[in-house]
Amino acid sequence: MHITFCCADTRPEPWLEGLRTALPGATVSTWSPGAPQADHAVVWSPPQQFLDEQPGLKGLFNIGAGVDALLKLKLPPGTKVVRLDDAGMSVQMAEYVCHAVIRHFREFDGYEADMAEGRWSFRKPRLRAEFPVGVMGLGVLGERVARALRQFEFPVHGWSRSPKTIEGVQCHAGAGGFDAFLGACRVLVNLLPLTPDTQNILNRRTLSCLQPGGYLINVARGAHLVDEDLLTLIDSGHLAGAALDVFRVEPLPSDHAFWTHPKITVTPHTSARTLREESIAQIAGKIRSIERGESIAGVVDRERGY
Amino acid sequence: MHITFCCADTRPEPWLEGLRTALPGATVSTWSPGAPQADHAVVWSPPQQFLDEQPGLKGLFNIGAGVDALLKLKLPPGTKVVRLDDAGMSVQMAEYVCHAVIRHFREFDGYEADMAEGRWSFRKPRLRAEFPVGVMGLGVLGERVARALRQFEFPVHGWSRSPKTIEGVQCHAGAGGFDAFLGACRVLVNLLPLTPDTQNILNRRTLSCLQPGGYLINVARGAHLVDEDLLTLIDSGHLAGAALDVFRVEPLPSDHAFWTHPKITVTPHTSARTLREESIAQIAGKIRSIERGESIAGVVDRERGY
Repeated sequence: MHITFCCADTRPEPWLEGLRTALPGATVSTWSPGAPQADHAVVWSPPQQFLDEQPGLKGLFNIGAGVDALLKLKLPPGTKVVRLDDAGMSVQMAEYVCHAVIRHFREFDGYEADMAEGRWSFRKPRLRAEFPVGVMGLGVLGERVARALRQFEFPVHGWSRSPKTIEGVQCHAGAGGFDAFLGACRVLVNLLPLTPDTQNILNRRTLSCLQPGGYLINVARGAHLVDEDLLTLIDSGHLAGAALDVFRVEPLPSDHAFWTHPKITVTPHTSARTLREESIAQIAGKIRSIERGESIAGVVDRERGY
Repeated sequence: MHITFCCADTRPEPWLEGLRTALPGATVSTWSPGAPQADHAVVWSPPQQFLDEQPGLKGLFNIGAGVDALLKLKLPPGTKVVRLDDAGMSVQMAEYVCHAVIRHFREFDGYEADMAEGRWSFRKPRLRAEFPVGVMGLGVLGERVARALRQFEFPVHGWSRSPKTIEGVQCHAGAGGFDAFLGACRVLVNLLPLTPDTQNILNRRTLSCLQPGGYLINVARGAHLVDEDLLTLIDSGHLAGAALDVFRVEPLPSDHAFWTHPKITVTPHTSARTLREESIAQIAGKIRSIERGESIAGVVDRERGY
């Protein structure tokens, strides 16, 4: 069995070594133009040429949860496109989102600013009931985030394309349930996959539906958000601010207004990083399953886009 | 039935009104010198004179979880001293501690500093297994905090005077188990009651037992910590820093080194605030139980000190 590795911005050696250890007997090598046909590929942002030269791949394993960039390419028709599911990412997402929600709700950013000025401040405790949180996207990551937020006793709402049931979470579904979901939330967490349907879904109309003093946490993709609309709604006072981990262009261009806006916290796309060991173990397990003719989780529906 | 109210730094009206609503038929009034004997008292830092003039109290209800200040006074011998148990405080503690642990582990403070300088930074993900967290004190607050940390998959240790069992938490107990507990931890959360036994318990010797790169989160009492020892161990590099919510003198004096130390985050004793509605409901319920001759939770063991 031959596994080829074609990942941009990634040091190949530890991945090759890990895959060889996890799949004894397999040949694992870095792809270069003209390389022979492989059985499976491990990829991140591969060039079109790679896909054109590897039409016979059984599995194409993306080392991230989002496959929006991959699906823009012309893919071999018979190949299973597989995304990472969890592999240590959901706990990171839960951490990122809980940290951001608690920081905003408890005003820890405000306390830090006060303390930096040497001011022992008093702020009236806010009521948890007045900070309902909504999670858009209830896949592996979204469900984990919603459950984590429940532990802190926030009212939690969820929204997904197809109906879901999560204990303690009020779930809404489909286009018909979207506005009711937004209107029930003050803090909005975006964990949707990026597809033609969800591009620009965070815009002036939808963000205006949030309760006054709303707060946006975007940990999905930059292209979900219309940047100018967020700025307009923060500056008008309808939204209290935002925590953003993803951007239309990354790294965020140095002249972008998000860098210096006092009510926006930006992080450098670090909410849920691909953890090599967990990812290798998951991909190797799925390769073994495919080779045994078994079905696997995480196969992307190309029509649906995730 | 007569209930007297004697709380420093607290606006009495909303408490009086809430207690009257919760206990219809009771007389509820603010204490002043010479006032008649009451059946129960709701207090925060009362003067000695108050206690001297109210020897016949059945219940003395402290509107906080820590009773260390109260026990320094001469108390009527037959009176039940009662602390708040939970009343909305444990979820606040879980929030404060999880926020501080996640912020340190994920280096969100470092990212914010980078971003403030306009730098899109990369930091290598840290391994959760290398950040075992220890919780000192496993009462209502400590247990809730330990369980919340488990959800984020940190290895969690607990230490308490008497042995406890909490699922997923490695529990240590007593003086004999203390050093093994400390040596197993990198992040240390203090939630102990302040008693003569626990005063100065966070000192050069004990903090040196933490794993290199240790981090202290003190949310109990300032007198648990020897301030200079913390500074010495941070400056020597053994400890990475601290998040402190409580201090020997509050407000923290303006010339104290904690204010400006780059590796210390200070907050103004806000980790778990007394929530009036929850507290009134709890105290009223306990007064009704005492009047019916039933036993109640949260009665302080004066010998033990909590």
